[in-house]
Amino acid sequence: MRIVDLIEKKKKGSSYTRDEIQFIIDGITNGTIADYQISAWLMAVWFAGMNDDETAYLTEAMAKSGDMLDLSSLGSYIVDKHSTGGVGDKITLVLIPLLAAAGLPVAKLSGRGLGHTGGTIDKLESIDGFRTDLSIDEFLAQVKNINVAIASQTLELTPADGKLYALRDVTATVDCLPFICSSVVSKKIASGANIIILDVKCGSGAFIKTKEQAEKLSELMVSVGHRLGRDITAVITDMNQPLGFAVGNLLEVVESVDVLRGKGPDDVRDLSVYFAALALVKAKKFENLEDAEVYLCKLLDDGSAFRKFEEMVSAQHGNLLSIEKGTYDKARYILDVKSFSDGYVSRCDALSIAKACKMLGAGRDKKGDEINHRVGIVLAKKIGDEVKNGEVLAYVHADDENLGKAVCEEISFAYEIVSDPVKTEALIYKTIC
Amino acid sequence: MRIVDLIEKKKKGSSYTRDEIQFIIDGITNGTIADYQISAWLMAVWFAGMNDDETAYLTEAMAKSGDMLDLSSLGSYIVDKHSTGGVGDKITLVLIPLLAAAGLPVAKLSGRGLGHTGGTIDKLESIDGFRTDLSIDEFLAQVKNINVAIASQTLELTPADGKLYALRDVTATVDCLPFICSSVVSKKIASGANIIILDVKCGSGAFIKTKEQAEKLSELMVSVGHRLGRDITAVITDMNQPLGFAVGNLLEVVESVDVLRGKGPDDVRDLSVYFAALALVKAKKFENLEDAEVYLCKLLDDGSAFRKFEEMVSAQHGNLLSIEKGTYDKARYILDVKSFSDGYVSRCDALSIAKACKMLGAGRDKKGDEINHRVGIVLAKKIGDEVKNGEVLAYVHADDENLGKAVCEEISFAYEIVSDPVKTEALIYKTIC
Repeated sequence: MRIVDLIEKKKKGSSYTRDEIQFIIDGITNGTIADYQISAWLMAVWFAGMNDDETAYLTEAMAKSGDMLDLSSLGSYIVDKHSTGGVGDKITLVLIPLLAAAGLPVAKLSGRGLGHTGGTIDKLESIDGFRTDLSIDEFLAQVKNINVAIASQTLELTPADGKLYALRDVTATVDCLPFICSSVVSKKIASGANIIILDVKCGSGAFIKTKEQAEKLSELMVSVGHRLGRDITAVITDMNQPLGFAVGNLLEVVESVDVLRGKGPDDVRDLSVYFAALALVKAKKFENLEDAEVYLCKLLDDGSAFRKFEEMVSAQHGNLLSIEKGTYDKARYILDVKSFSDGYVSRCDALSIAKACKMLGAGRDKKGDEINHRVGIVLAKKIGDEVKNGEVLAYVHADDENLGKAVCEEISFAYEIVSDPVKTEALIYKTIC
Repeated sequence: MRIVDLIEKKKKGSSYTRDEIQFIIDGITNGTIADYQISAWLMAVWFAGMNDDETAYLTEAMAKSGDMLDLSSLGSYIVDKHSTGGVGDKITLVLIPLLAAAGLPVAKLSGRGLGHTGGTIDKLESIDGFRTDLSIDEFLAQVKNINVAIASQTLELTPADGKLYALRDVTATVDCLPFICSSVVSKKIASGANIIILDVKCGSGAFIKTKEQAEKLSELMVSVGHRLGRDITAVITDMNQPLGFAVGNLLEVVESVDVLRGKGPDDVRDLSVYFAALALVKAKKFENLEDAEVYLCKLLDDGSAFRKFEEMVSAQHGNLLSIEKGTYDKARYILDVKSFSDGYVSRCDALSIAKACKMLGAGRDKKGDEINHRVGIVLAKKIGDEVKNGEVLAYVHADDENLGKAVCEEISFAYEIVSDPVKTEALIYKTIC
């Protein structure tokens, strides 16, 4: 086989066999296919597409291109959840301890933030002393011991995806469903779960902007999961405005703790409970979502979920005391963003808020950049809320006053206030399984 | 400007401005655009295409990417001719001295053969002592002195094309009209002519297989020429069987000398005279093709064209004596390929014959490979010819007997003999100007 012939084949609109895709992924992984050939191939696939079979072969080959985590010793049902990337998306911080409190073992590998989206590992590291660099043995031992662990990836999972993503990013081939699907699903497969819940974010703050695209991607990921023997559920959720009120690492942990204690914003609680309920039904713990949701709400309200979170934080050497007491390290300046008119919030743009948050230092442009855990933005008003002239729309937590003021300006542009009441959109658009 | 945005733009089907194309070609030439981005761009253009304006911008930018030869001191009309690559294509060897004999100055830069197509420089180097490595000053002085010179390219013409071609070759993007057009035309423009005749070969021995493709390419090249102020004429000619009888470097020179002396195969003579007549009319030496052709045939028949060729060979330190006397260095074995049936030749496949000739050592796989000037194939029968069982179809000139026998086998497969008389196709399909 020669890669130039395989590029030609795709260019002419033909479909690849499993062996052909294996050849391509092997060549990408071990470096025998040159970057300039990979990128020509990427563009040919962008134009000519791949069918579901090809996408499944691609996903499988990518999953097997590096280490594969074996979680079978933890139980029959291993749940994983992945978000395609949102703003203020702290669901993992609530969902994982909640599932563990409900009796499901959860071994969760997470990543750091890049660009305008945050990462669970960065958020957890804003807890005093919290260790995310567990070895695989420590990680598995902790799950066996207390049912839950969240660690950063130390294994080399899906190296082919890493290589492909780096090239896609510089060759305008990021927006290609077979590649997006195989990138997401291969990593979940290599991470060892058999029940996979994918939160497909859709809207201004997500890289998928339209419901149509989100549905296509979701259907593809579910179909590929079935072909590869994994139970994948894709839930398309709104990302036109941030989830919850807090955006920024430590601020999001504080809000997650509120939700784990039975308080906090409804959207974060509802989505966490919904995902957890889906997982419990898939794992045969409940027959229907409604019963599971009632049970899960109880775990939030009676403190069980929070106790499990405390247990995990403590097992990973973290200290929650300052967060529980509200004495945690705050940014030097907390500035108000005020409304200049009476009316209703019709827009609270997730992307603008995320970019503003990154300006404050909460995010990074490239791997390895330092971030500031305590800066961020706390919204006071969201879409549909009534607001009076002079009332606060949001608070900017900044360590630099001038930067903070500039960010206040940006945040005020992220809002739109209209005179008539605004109907809010559903948080969950669609569940595909 | 960022290349990733320009790739995205083409991917989405938009057209480039002149500045955008200049940015891309500059980046390719000076190495600031990475190969993996160039190849993604190549594939995007393969799919999304380019309009005639874009192709003209591309051609112009490529022409100006390196040295530009200034031939204006030689006269108002500077003729150049280029073939897209054929088998037994010795037209340049006849045409150039013929034009010079007709009073037009001809300063011709030529290339070496690669793959299955031969190159004029290799052919000329089979003449004892012939120098092709003239400096630009020597080259121009010779044209001023005797009206004609053929030299190998010592200037760095169109380096962007060299870079692009190398990538196209390994990324399955060779077959793309805007790239083929810009590659051919940019080199002609950089070579300094203002009257350009393009011989667009079409058929099994050419890289363009169908008349439809040949017409599209021809129309594009003519259109781009007009946009860039050059008078381009594209002539689509048959390349299903070799031109003339001889294929192989020295053998083709011998045949060309025959034609220059008023003898030799009709197809080589006719095409050479046709191209020369086109050039004379373009250069306002004649009002119509017919008168020009009568004059040119006279130059062949009265020995003027051959004397001009002798003059050129002598100026470039070559010695034609052995060719004139027929005592030139022949291959060790001359083997017969015989017909096994009575009938008519319906196929004399140019590509198979070219490949067989390369097997003998007459061609090279990569730049710098040594070639054997004296080996080759001389056809005895061509399409339409009647043939008897046992009669010779072709002669194989080989230096190795076993290799020669294997090549005889290949040549016999290149022929097809049918029982009914065969109508021959026209040599010239179409002229577009």
